[in-house]
Amino acid sequence: MKFLIIGGDAAGMSAASRAKRKKTDMEVTVLEQTMDVSYSACGMPYNIADPDRDMEKLVVRKAEVFIEKNKINLLTGHKAEKIDPINKLVTGVDINNNQFSFPYDKLLIATGASPIIPEIPGFNLPEVMALKSLEHGKKIKAFIEQKNIKKAVILGMGYIGLEMCEALTKRSVKVDMIKPRPVFLPWMTPELADVIKNELEANNINLFLGHKIERIEPDKKGLSIKCDDFSIDADLVIVAIGVTPNSDIAIDAGIKTGISNAISVDSTLLTSDKDIYAAGDCADAIHVVTKKKCWIPLALRANRAGWAVADNLCGLETKLKGVAGTAVFKVFSLEVARTGLSTKEALDAGFDPAEISIKTRSRAHGQPGSKTIYVSMTGDKKTGQLLGVQMVGKEGVAHRINAAAVALHSNMTVKDFSETDLAYAPPFGPVWDPLLTAANQLIKKL
Amino acid sequence: MKFLIIGGDAAGMSAASRAKRKKTDMEVTVLEQTMDVSYSACGMPYNIADPDRDMEKLVVRKAEVFIEKNKINLLTGHKAEKIDPINKLVTGVDINNNQFSFPYDKLLIATGASPIIPEIPGFNLPEVMALKSLEHGKKIKAFIEQKNIKKAVILGMGYIGLEMCEALTKRSVKVDMIKPRPVFLPWMTPELADVIKNELEANNINLFLGHKIERIEPDKKGLSIKCDDFSIDADLVIVAIGVTPNSDIAIDAGIKTGISNAISVDSTLLTSDKDIYAAGDCADAIHVVTKKKCWIPLALRANRAGWAVADNLCGLETKLKGVAGTAVFKVFSLEVARTGLSTKEALDAGFDPAEISIKTRSRAHGQPGSKTIYVSMTGDKKTGQLLGVQMVGKEGVAHRINAAAVALHSNMTVKDFSETDLAYAPPFGPVWDPLLTAANQLIKKL
Repeated sequence: MKFLIIGGDAAGMSAASRAKRKKTDMEVTVLEQTMDVSYSACGMPYNIADPDRDMEKLVVRKAEVFIEKNKINLLTGHKAEKIDPINKLVTGVDINNNQFSFPYDKLLIATGASPIIPEIPGFNLPEVMALKSLEHGKKIKAFIEQKNIKKAVILGMGYIGLEMCEALTKRSVKVDMIKPRPVFLPWMTPELADVIKNELEANNINLFLGHKIERIEPDKKGLSIKCDDFSIDADLVIVAIGVTPNSDIAIDAGIKTGISNAISVDSTLLTSDKDIYAAGDCADAIHVVTKKKCWIPLALRANRAGWAVADNLCGLETKLKGVAGTAVFKVFSLEVARTGLSTKEALDAGFDPAEISIKTRSRAHGQPGSKTIYVSMTGDKKTGQLLGVQMVGKEGVAHRINAAAVALHSNMTVKDFSETDLAYAPPFGPVWDPLLTAANQLIKKL
Repeated sequence: MKFLIIGGDAAGMSAASRAKRKKTDMEVTVLEQTMDVSYSACGMPYNIADPDRDMEKLVVRKAEVFIEKNKINLLTGHKAEKIDPINKLVTGVDINNNQFSFPYDKLLIATGASPIIPEIPGFNLPEVMALKSLEHGKKIKAFIEQKNIKKAVILGMGYIGLEMCEALTKRSVKVDMIKPRPVFLPWMTPELADVIKNELEANNINLFLGHKIERIEPDKKGLSIKCDDFSIDADLVIVAIGVTPNSDIAIDAGIKTGISNAISVDSTLLTSDKDIYAAGDCADAIHVVTKKKCWIPLALRANRAGWAVADNLCGLETKLKGVAGTAVFKVFSLEVARTGLSTKEALDAGFDPAEISIKTRSRAHGQPGSKTIYVSMTGDKKTGQLLGVQMVGKEGVAHRINAAAVALHSNMTVKDFSETDLAYAPPFGPVWDPLLTAANQLIKKL
């Protein structure tokens, strides 16, 4: 069987490796447009922060290893341009401008997502950069070091923007952040969002909310970022407004897309074409809380979906249940985590949500080193169901959130969750874990 | 209504406070034999470790506050001796040797558990001490400081023994541990138990396994602990062999006990007497995995059961689903956690268990500061059900275990658990969380 994969990132390489491991006689070909495969994209901000670590350290497995050891026909520098689903053929152009064409029996589209670059004058200047591929990462890191960058502006205040904020600060680059909409982290409960905002400001980050960027211009000192009501200088602009699924190649082939323009897949990762799968940041998923389609591009899902495609191809029928949208990130000394729906998302999804926000401690009474933990929890008044949790704190947040994520997968009620037997020892938490305290409080509102 | 409570620790005071809060006209009386109520017993080893922290810091709420603010008739220094279930009367003796007698409409037995003290010569010497009450804690701490203790022997190698081991080492006391049975942490997967053993030995702790203690004798230098095949000197002996439920007063009143001699309760915490509840370390519980009775005395359950008794008394019918036996403790730089059944316990409970032990990393590839994490996971071959998890590591263990605990409460299969959407960011874990990696491996064996 000829298994062709477009895209050699998390989903694509997971699928390729697993398929080849399960069926050694399968012909597995991967077309990757860049020169890098299998690297920790999420590790880039942390690597940029550290002058002593080479970016190559983020590469988990080199292309040669996939080719020689795993016997995968991995072709880097190969940009797929067109899928012909009638003749089951993918065509494109390689790095030397040679046309190529590959037939397939089964195809996996794992094209990922791309940073959104607004169509505004100046976004094509060399000092204006996005962070998605390893190439981007290397470019930004080299730029900071070679140009002795002192001042950066980050456009956008999402996960990547916030992580880059810390990374640049660590490199002694002064950072300002700008976003057009007035609300900081709009998906987050305001009390918790304020904690993060304060942490940023305490680290000397200026947040400019509600400023529309009109153009970026080169000036004597570097760049001038012109907003509708003010302008600001910088040596470097990081564009972190958001990402969009790379689904054009699928759309052109007549494959169905849905929410956020992501490729629509069923629980086996099959698209509207019975021989074409899609996985990773280009594809949608079912949300375990809403039971509706969602597009939440995250690394674990990409890896898991890649495996599931391989399993399905190898006759091991695998249906993925869905995602809870569990995420964690670090903002200076804060751990920030979420799973499930925010109260606003719950309202939009037709629930009748109640929310509680609590402030408690990361360790037991009388235990030194205890830090404040903020928990916001949302439940449904109609059914009592747990809908989502958000947490912020200096310790004990990143892994705590997972207990709530598992509860969402089980469709637990807030009451049932409040009765779970969570671990307790004084150095690690109060007797009533912050999650349980939040659940106990939320019950009263349901 | 007269609500009488025997025992002013976690379960007793939780019940008293909640009952009084929900029904202010209820007459709530608590009989506590010691002078202390509402303190963090689990915090004692950590407090003993620290010369600069007063042990009073462990008191969450003083007796006066319960009396004056909560209007609870809290009587410290009152030892209940006999329950007369026919006449609904509890009699006993107070600290001044005065007899007392209290009638009740509803009674809660929250007498807790006591350290097991073997009936061996020398266990009554003043230098031989157990750690359960705050009085015990104060006595041990004062003893270490006043007698300038240099050498201690801990009998037993359970949670408390291990925590005391670290506490004493921090106070520059050399520690040896002795236990009669040959296996260190018999409930733990050997690979993981070895990690803890190595950590203890690296911290200069001698472990003497398989040595029966025959007697303890005073000698010139302090104490001599005589085993069947060797003897060892010490200035202090900590007895941490285990605990036993304080159920004698219930047994004498004809109340049914069961497993480990704990008081048998239903899901509403009612005993075999329709007017008598039991909660906390003296009572049993249903295990969420085996669905059978178990006796796992832990602080969270005691607090939760106390609340449930109060709710049931106040007409808010509350049935507790059960415990997963989730626990965490610290051994020097290691976090050690468990939830659910060990493989041996699974076998004993009639499951057909398969087990996997993995060694993975606490953070993502290429992320500095990553530590080794060991996970052992047990599932049932017949049903695919997740049965239990154990973890050991220098970071990321204490809260990670809770995800598995919630899965046990939901009776998840290992497969379902392996599909949960857990949080990922490079500073906090690999893309596939160690728990997911373990689940992925275990699936192959089921």
